[in-house]
Amino acid sequence: MREESALVQQFFLVIEYLAVISGGLYGILLAKRHGMDFVGLFAMAFILAFGGGTLRDLFLDRHPLFWIRHQEYALILFGMAFGASFFRSLSDAIEKWLHLPDAFGLGLFSILGTSFALEADVPWFIASLLGVVTGSFGGVMGQVICNEMPNLFTSSPLYATCSFVGSWTFLLLSLILSVEYATLCGIAVVVVFRLAAVRFDLRLPNRSESSSS
Amino acid sequence: MREESALVQQFFLVIEYLAVISGGLYGILLAKRHGMDFVGLFAMAFILAFGGGTLRDLFLDRHPLFWIRHQEYALILFGMAFGASFFRSLSDAIEKWLHLPDAFGLGLFSILGTSFALEADVPWFIASLLGVVTGSFGGVMGQVICNEMPNLFTSSPLYATCSFVGSWTFLLLSLILSVEYATLCGIAVVVVFRLAAVRFDLRLPNRSESSSS
Amino acid sequence: MREESALVQQFFLVIEYLAVISGGLYGILLAKRHGMDFVGLFAMAFILAFGGGTLRDLFLDRHPLFWIRHQEYALILFGMAFGASFFRSLSDAIEKWLHLPDAFGLGLFSILGTSFALEADVPWFIASLLGVVTGSFGGVMGQVICNEMPNLFTSSPLYATCSFVGSWTFLLLSLILSVEYATLCGIAVVVVFRLAAVRFDLRLPNRSESSSS
Repeated sequence: MREESALVQQFFLVIEYLAVISGGLYGILLAKRHGMDFVGLFAMAFILAFGGGTLRDLFLDRHPLFWIRHQEYALILFGMAFGASFFRSLSDAIEKWLHLPDAFGLGLFSILGTSFALEADVPWFIASLLGVVTGSFGGVMGQVICNEMPNLFTSSPLYATCSFVGSWTFLLLSLILSVEYATLCGIAVVVVFRLAAVRFDLRLPNRSESSSS
Repeated sequence: MREESALVQQFFLVIEYLAVISGGLYGILLAKRHGMDFVGLFAMAFILAFGGGTLRDLFLDRHPLFWIRHQEYALILFGMAFGASFFRSLSDAIEKWLHLPDAFGLGLFSILGTSFALEADVPWFIASLLGVVTGSFGGVMGQVICNEMPNLFTSSPLYATCSFVGSWTFLLLSLILSVEYATLCGIAVVVVFRLAAVRFDLRLPNRSESSSS
Repeated sequence: MREESALVQQFFLVIEYLAVISGGLYGILLAKRHGMDFVGLFAMAFILAFGGGTLRDLFLDRHPLFWIRHQEYALILFGMAFGASFFRSLSDAIEKWLHLPDAFGLGLFSILGTSFALEADVPWFIASLLGVVTGSFGGVMGQVICNEMPNLFTSSPLYATCSFVGSWTFLLLSLILSVEYATLCGIAVVVVFRLAAVRFDLRLPNRSESSSS
């Protein structure tokens, strides 16, 4: 955490790669659960890793889209899906271990989304929502395609909430700190909050009576 | 209905608020039916209220999107979802009463969509379709996410049809009347037609043999 | 296949009409299978015929969208859906015969998507993916709306793969041939490959264990 901006940039780049890879891994796991072939594995990896950021870029009219600018992200996902197509299933161990990169991915994509929105002079509340969309809508799209109810919307351990709280941490700290530090703090809040939610099974209270199964 | 444009503008603003609120209420009802928590309530309210208009803005390349420009709309939905999360379910009374603001919402969003398309020099037939998309695709998206077959597409009481007829009323009247009057007439046609469809159970004939359920 | 560019343009136009029509027919068949009324028939025809190209245009920031520029495409679909609403179901004969125009549609939309991406200076790998999206995502959207698992992602006869191989054929040949010839060859590869996949039931190997039905 030196003040040298170049170091911070490299740190961000590493995290962004991790975020794309973890999004891709989740996509592949989801595709495997539904018995998809290589095309399905790649498509789901693509949708989980790029879905939220694509919505953000379209909503904010940012072009070219981030995965069009960074061809290497799609190539990595292609390689991952290709490799995964040789395995019958991925071990449960991997699925458990995934919470870590996923939390980093949620953190980075959320704060990136919020800060891009801020750059575009979007009001704060909307900026925080765009952070949540960026961080979590890839998963929503993936589950909708697989005809699963998005577990973001039901009482799973906190996910969108971590992203929302981290986005506001970033927004408030950006008033008193440099953007780099505010970004790092925002990401840290999302990551720690999300890992705590998984570890201690934190959920929102839910009084809705489900009439579906 | 004085000719003063300011009064007309205020009238439109009131209706737009009503439209966002009724879209949000439908979203919350849908989320409640599927047992969602606060995040789900807010997300569904957001999608139902903003989904159609977002597609319109993206298709016509209008930026910033209307809900990015009007932060207060999202804040209202946030408050509504927060309030609703304390109730186990919403009474059937509300659901019945909802047809009224929903019909106004359908009318306003449809005619707004058509008139924005017209401003962008879109051919008439496409403009009327964009009116229908603006008025009714929030509901389609919401149902797709909840894995329900969109009842817009099956033989429910006329919905998209009302929007289509009202859009053409607006287009044709805009040739001989001022835009304000044509808009008001278009909205009125949608509202009256929709309320009549609900009241008298008007449906399109349907000869399709469903092989599902 | 004279070198006159005007003739080639006309050839493309004919194929584009065929592509829109075959996309629309598939949409209508899908809608009929799910018991939809006229609104549903038209909406599904619209989504199947325009879905992939709309994503391409939005991702590449091309405006106006192709179906906004060509009002006649939507009018054709409207007429087709109207006609189809008088029939109880479409005969299986039509469904079988559809593979031909659909293969042409897949070919043309894929290569068009890739070449538009190339024009926009998109890297090659991304360009080939945009070709696949343009050619095949209308069908994915349609099936998601109908709560079917997209058969693009499971082990159906090769579809996205044909589009991918054809897109690369186009990209590589565009280095040594004129764009017109490269386009024709790319389309031909997709069409022949797709028809062969249907005829000989070519599928990707699939080692995923489906845990869903």
